[in-house]
Amino acid sequence: MQKYLITGFSGFVSKHFLDFLERNEINASVLGIDLCLPSFGRKDYGHVKWSFQKIDLLDKDGIENLIYEFQPEYILHLASFSSVSFSWKNPVLSYQHNINIFLNLLEAVRKLNIEGKILSVGSSEEYGNVDKDQLPLKEESPLNPISPYAVARVSQEMLSKVYVDGFGMDIVMTRSFNHIGPGQKDIFVISSFARQIVGLKKDKPRKNEIRTGDISVIRDFIDVRDVVRAYYLLLQKGKNGEIYNICSGRGFSLSEIINKMAQIAGVNVIPRLDKRLIRPKDNKIIIGSNEKVKRDIGWDMKISLEKSLEDILEYWDNQ
Amino acid sequence: MQKYLITGFSGFVSKHFLDFLERNEINASVLGIDLCLPSFGRKDYGHVKWSFQKIDLLDKDGIENLIYEFQPEYILHLASFSSVSFSWKNPVLSYQHNINIFLNLLEAVRKLNIEGKILSVGSSEEYGNVDKDQLPLKEESPLNPISPYAVARVSQEMLSKVYVDGFGMDIVMTRSFNHIGPGQKDIFVISSFARQIVGLKKDKPRKNEIRTGDISVIRDFIDVRDVVRAYYLLLQKGKNGEIYNICSGRGFSLSEIINKMAQIAGVNVIPRLDKRLIRPKDNKIIIGSNEKVKRDIGWDMKISLEKSLEDILEYWDNQ
Repeated sequence: MQKYLITGFSGFVSKHFLDFLERNEINASVLGIDLCLPSFGRKDYGHVKWSFQKIDLLDKDGIENLIYEFQPEYILHLASFSSVSFSWKNPVLSYQHNINIFLNLLEAVRKLNIEGKILSVGSSEEYGNVDKDQLPLKEESPLNPISPYAVARVSQEMLSKVYVDGFGMDIVMTRSFNHIGPGQKDIFVISSFARQIVGLKKDKPRKNEIRTGDISVIRDFIDVRDVVRAYYLLLQKGKNGEIYNICSGRGFSLSEIINKMAQIAGVNVIPRLDKRLIRPKDNKIIIGSNEKVKRDIGWDMKISLEKSLEDILEYWDNQ
Repeated sequence: MQKYLITGFSGFVSKHFLDFLERNEINASVLGIDLCLPSFGRKDYGHVKWSFQKIDLLDKDGIENLIYEFQPEYILHLASFSSVSFSWKNPVLSYQHNINIFLNLLEAVRKLNIEGKILSVGSSEEYGNVDKDQLPLKEESPLNPISPYAVARVSQEMLSKVYVDGFGMDIVMTRSFNHIGPGQKDIFVISSFARQIVGLKKDKPRKNEIRTGDISVIRDFIDVRDVVRAYYLLLQKGKNGEIYNICSGRGFSLSEIINKMAQIAGVNVIPRLDKRLIRPKDNKIIIGSNEKVKRDIGWDMKISLEKSLEDILEYWDNQ
C-alpha cells in the first residue's frame, strides 16, 4: 500500500492521477488536500482509498499537523494558482499560492523528518521568451521568466534545490508543459476554445465566433493522462534533485488547435480577438525536449493530440 | 527637494544613506518605514527632513495608504531579513521578509501609478557557489543560489524584471556584496569579529579566542559609505531594468580580515571554530566585478578596507 499526499487534490490533474492508480490496480492510500472540495466521489475507486481535508497550505500549523498524522511516503504537489493571466492581475495572490504554499509544505516535511519523496511540479513558463534556435528546450536551457507566475515557478525550483542540497531532502522537479485533457477548467485556453466550439455546435449562433487571445503563440501540448503517468514514474524512479521536462516534443499554434477542433466538431469557427485576453508579455513559442524523462524513467507519450482534442470536446459536450 | 521613501529605515545602511545626503547638502524629504524604531534622532540632520512610520511591509493596505499619501519620487528598498544563517533556520520568515514584502511594495506602486524610481537591493549571494575561473563575477554570470535567502533575492530580481517589462515600471537592481561599516549589527560576520576583538582588548581573558564559523571563505567586502553613494547615484542615473554589482573587486578570506583587525587593535587573536556557526551550504569564494557600475554611473570606491576595519573597531570600542 503506497501512501500519497496530494496537494491541489480537487484539480483535474489529481483526478487523472487517481484514475491512473485505479486503472493500474495500484493499491494506494491517498490523503488529498485543497482549498475547495473535490467534485468527484469515491465510488469509482477500489484500489485507491482516499480521504480529503479542506485546508489552505498557507495555514502552516494545520499543514504540519496533517502531515504528522498522515506520514506520507509520496507527496505529489499539484497545488498552484497556475494561470499566467491571473498572475498578471493578482501577482500577490498568485505568488503566495505558488511559492509560499510550497515553502510551507517543504518546511513541514523538513521539521517532521518525513522521509517521503516530493514531486515539485513546475512549468514550461519558466523558460520565458526563447529564440527559435534554442528549441526544443532542454532542462539545461537558460530560464527567463516573464510573468509573475513564471517567477514563482522558478523560485519553487530554486527552493527545491536548496532543500535537496542544504537539508538532504528528496525532491524531484518537473517543468510541465501545457497540459490538456477532459475535466480541465475553461480558464485554460484549450478548454475555453473547446467549450466555445461545443457552444457553437449546440446554440447555432448567427456568427460562428469564439473569443480568443493571441492565437499565433505556439505551445507544446501534452495530454494530462500522459502527464500523470510521468508523475507516478517520477515519484517511483525520478532522481533526487533532478528536473524533468514533461512535454510532447511538438509545437502547435493555438490557431492550428482551433482548426483541428473545428474539424473534429464539424463546425466552422471564426476566432475573434478579445483584447482583454492579451497578456502584458507572452512567450511566442515553447517546445520542449522530453529526452531526459524518456531516458531516466522510461516514460513515453501514449495519447495523440487528436485523441486529446476529441476527448476534450466530448467532455464539454457532456457538460 | 527630492522625495525618498526608504524601507528598512532603521538599519545601518539607511542611516549611512541619510548621512550621505546630509554631508552632500542634498535637500531631501524622507519617509522612513521599518518594523522597528530607528536608533538615531533628527538632530544631526538639516538638509534632510525625515519622518518615520513603524509598519510591516506585509501589511499591504497600510503600505498602499502610506505610499498614496507620500507620493515618493525615489524608493530605496533596503528592507530585508538579510542574514543567510537566519534563512537556514527560518526559511519561511526569511522568504516572507524578503520577497513578499518586496512584492507588496511593487504592487502598491503599480496600483497607485506612482512614477517613482525604485532601487531594488539584491545580494552577491545570488551567484552561489562559483568556480574560481568565473571570477570576478559579472552581472551576466550565471546565478546558482544555494540558501533560502539567496533564492529570495534572485526571485526579487526576477520579479523586478517582470514589473519593468510587463508593467513599465522604473526599477534599478543591485547585487550588493558584503557591506561592512560602523553601526552594523553583530549578527553579521565582520561586526561580530570586531565586537569580540574589542572585547578581548578590554576584558583581557585568559585565552584570546573569538568564536567563528568557517573563516576560509573569501568575500568581497565593501564599505557601506561607498555602497550608499552607489545607491544614490543609481537612483539618479541607473538604467531602468539593469542590474549592477556593488562591490570592491577584491576578495579577502575571513581569516585575513581577522588578522588585519587583530593588528589594528593590537591584540593577539585565536579563532575558535563554533560548529553552530557552520552553514549547511556556503559559497567558498565570492569576488565581484564593479566595471559596469563604474562605467554607467561614474561611481568609484573611496574607502579602503583598512579604513573600514579601523572605523568598525572604533565603533565597537565606543559601545
